[in-house]
Amino acid sequence: MAYVEQENPDFTKIIKKHLTEENTEALLSLLEDLNTVEISNNILPLKSKYQLAIIELLDREKAAEVLNNLQQHAPVLEDIVEEMDSKQLGDLIEDMDKDDAADVLSVLDDEKATEVLEELSKEDREEITTLLQYDEDSAGGIMDPVVISVQKDITVKQATTQIKTFINKKEIDEFYVIYVVDEFNHLIGSISLSQLFIASDNTITKDIMDPDVVAVNVDTDQEKVAKLAQEYDLVTVPVIDKHLKLVGRITNDDLMDVMHEEHQEDLGQIAGTGDEEVLETSVFKAIRDRLPWLLLGLGGGMLAALVMRNYETAISELPVVAYFIPLVAALGGNIAIQSSSLVVRGLATGEIRTSDLFKRTWKELRVGFLNGLICAILLVGLAWWLTDEIIIGITSGAALIVVVCLAAFVGTSIPIILKRMNMDPAVATGPFITTANDLIGIVIYLAITISVYSNHLM
Amino acid sequence: MAYVEQENPDFTKIIKKHLTEENTEALLSLLEDLNTVEISNNILPLKSKYQLAIIELLDREKAAEVLNNLQQHAPVLEDIVEEMDSKQLGDLIEDMDKDDAADVLSVLDDEKATEVLEELSKEDREEITTLLQYDEDSAGGIMDPVVISVQKDITVKQATTQIKTFINKKEIDEFYVIYVVDEFNHLIGSISLSQLFIASDNTITKDIMDPDVVAVNVDTDQEKVAKLAQEYDLVTVPVIDKHLKLVGRITNDDLMDVMHEEHQEDLGQIAGTGDEEVLETSVFKAIRDRLPWLLLGLGGGMLAALVMRNYETAISELPVVAYFIPLVAALGGNIAIQSSSLVVRGLATGEIRTSDLFKRTWKELRVGFLNGLICAILLVGLAWWLTDEIIIGITSGAALIVVVCLAAFVGTSIPIILKRMNMDPAVATGPFITTANDLIGIVIYLAITISVYSNHLM
Repeated sequence: MAYVEQENPDFTKIIKKHLTEENTEALLSLLEDLNTVEISNNILPLKSKYQLAIIELLDREKAAEVLNNLQQHAPVLEDIVEEMDSKQLGDLIEDMDKDDAADVLSVLDDEKATEVLEELSKEDREEITTLLQYDEDSAGGIMDPVVISVQKDITVKQATTQIKTFINKKEIDEFYVIYVVDEFNHLIGSISLSQLFIASDNTITKDIMDPDVVAVNVDTDQEKVAKLAQEYDLVTVPVIDKHLKLVGRITNDDLMDVMHEEHQEDLGQIAGTGDEEVLETSVFKAIRDRLPWLLLGLGGGMLAALVMRNYETAISELPVVAYFIPLVAALGGNIAIQSSSLVVRGLATGEIRTSDLFKRTWKELRVGFLNGLICAILLVGLAWWLTDEIIIGITSGAALIVVVCLAAFVGTSIPIILKRMNMDPAVATGPFITTANDLIGIVIYLAITISVYSNHLM
Repeated sequence: MAYVEQENPDFTKIIKKHLTEENTEALLSLLEDLNTVEISNNILPLKSKYQLAIIELLDREKAAEVLNNLQQHAPVLEDIVEEMDSKQLGDLIEDMDKDDAADVLSVLDDEKATEVLEELSKEDREEITTLLQYDEDSAGGIMDPVVISVQKDITVKQATTQIKTFINKKEIDEFYVIYVVDEFNHLIGSISLSQLFIASDNTITKDIMDPDVVAVNVDTDQEKVAKLAQEYDLVTVPVIDKHLKLVGRITNDDLMDVMHEEHQEDLGQIAGTGDEEVLETSVFKAIRDRLPWLLLGLGGGMLAALVMRNYETAISELPVVAYFIPLVAALGGNIAIQSSSLVVRGLATGEIRTSDLFKRTWKELRVGFLNGLICAILLVGLAWWLTDEIIIGITSGAALIVVVCLAAFVGTSIPIILKRMNMDPAVATGPFITTANDLIGIVIYLAITISVYSNHLM
């Protein structure tokens, strides 16, 4: 039993030591003891030539599993498969589920992918080629075309025999749901394996099936598929084509991978780390993933500097106008990101529709305004105390309210408008929205305060 | 078949209309057509008295499912169950899986929970009471104590008979894995239901079980459990106690819920929206969830204002020093959040250990320094062009590099140090870390630039 709680020794270090010392015997004995997840996680930080050396030491089945595990680290997988020859890769891919095989092939360039496909049997080649045509983030792109289905009017005993034959032929390891179809292969119901297991032999499949089966279309976005599985507590999601015919199933492992992947993507977008992995060890890759977001911030900051230069005289005469700039920029940015992150999340899962533009904006405006009001009152007090001029307090507070309302408006409407224009609303989270609001906030704040002060204080 | 792609009419609106018109007949017919997920999602935006009215219209089984679905929206569930009487709630809870029942009970105050428990059978009460003792974010808190296990030395035929009897007795709906135990109930292996299904009658369970079963302890954090399930492609995770005895299982639906919940939590923390739901409609609740993060930003901004006031003369004589403050604050904040979000994520999943402090900080420092250097070079150019003074460019650029290195250091080390002190590292993401860095950045930037300028320009 793998009791995973104890802290393991640093296997990465040990593997690297054995590799550099070319101690193949020790390496083989260590790899024997580790399961494929442990192997994948521990070779992740190694250079790709070392990763490849380890994979070559494994037996075919284990090697295929490791390669499959590495899928979640696309750049790592890419480097490895590029260095493998087509024959070797074809052997490993043959051992994988079709959907996983297609995922691995999709990271190769076209020429190499064709070479590898030619190593496969005609049937496998055709199935995988079909899968490669779907968008990789759609249900079609993550489904396994090998799906167990039975006719609606046979007995449990007949169904059991059919299923056993099918499983032997297709070498299916695990399955949890059997789908029920009519004579045209239209999906009409589902039977969980546990229901089939306890049903008596003469029951007709139609009578124990759940007719309210939940299915997705081949084109459905994977994030929506995962959301659906989570809401409906599905272990496997059936996939249908536009004629409502059953064409595949999305299994539990892929659903969890999608959830994990989308989670990483959301966080990466909001924190400005792009697709960078936690375990990424290449400083160069980390820089490449993060720099674009920083350049955005830099650009915004430079524009802010240009704006402030326009008010040079005012700042020089009354430096107090500059004091609250960081505060106004920070609050505008925070409120914008609060609104945008909720909206982007809701749009992705379908909880918010583009037709909700007005309703959503109205809610976010009220929340933003009231939170802004509370902050503004505190700001009035501080500014008054700091400068002994009530007018400075009131002006700064009023400017803050304008800025935060605008921030709530921008943070809510931009993602929805992007979505309406069929663009990815997620670009409007994180650094993009905070930078935009920093800038807008500073311009508005300076315009308001300086026009008031120039009439009353200068 | 529920084909979920088409946009549904706005059922929330329809339900509300029927409710206010007291059109029970139309309401019942609508509720008949909707599944429990649709009902839950569509009553979510309603007031709790309406939600309760709907639940009371449903039959017991459907009502229990709706209540269970609402668990993911803790504040909503809380309002509803508080208004239900103990008898009614006891009836619904009896229909739920034990782990779900415990979750619902855990939102009640102690007195009411005791009342509801008294409505249950002795066996249910004892099982649920045991579950309530575990931390709700631990494996024990999310596990179902009803788990199917068989002895290691019986035949498949014997196992099948035992399982069928057990399922009937315990009213288990779905299961996917059977666990194999020794005579002391120690977990020693697992058999997927599909393996059992295709195995021949006389096979001994031990011979088809997977001895490398992966288990978690009752105390394991739920986020680690989900990470494990995702890595090892598990549909169900077995839970063992400190004597390695099998005490429960965590099912697929709970694993996906945990992933969803942790995802929402991470995003809420980084975006400063707390636990707020996308579908939250109460402006008051939204304000309460978001205000603390804004007050943090406000506090930081006020301190920044105080710092700047100390440099009043310098800003007044040479306003250019103020121009780059928003830029420096933004970049410092961005780099800190890039580092901290990766570290916090890695610590949560176990991919980063607290002993990695030095290694991690060193990596983040290099990434931060190199990204800062690129930004600094661009800043030097802009500052020079803007002010015609090369010294201003160089000083601002140098100050920026110091600020970003410190930001990378703070963003990496604070979460790891918090974790070492057994505190939640996640408090060090989002608004907290950006505010801290805004402030540190402004202080350092002003100190460096003004001390250089006062020697050379003023």
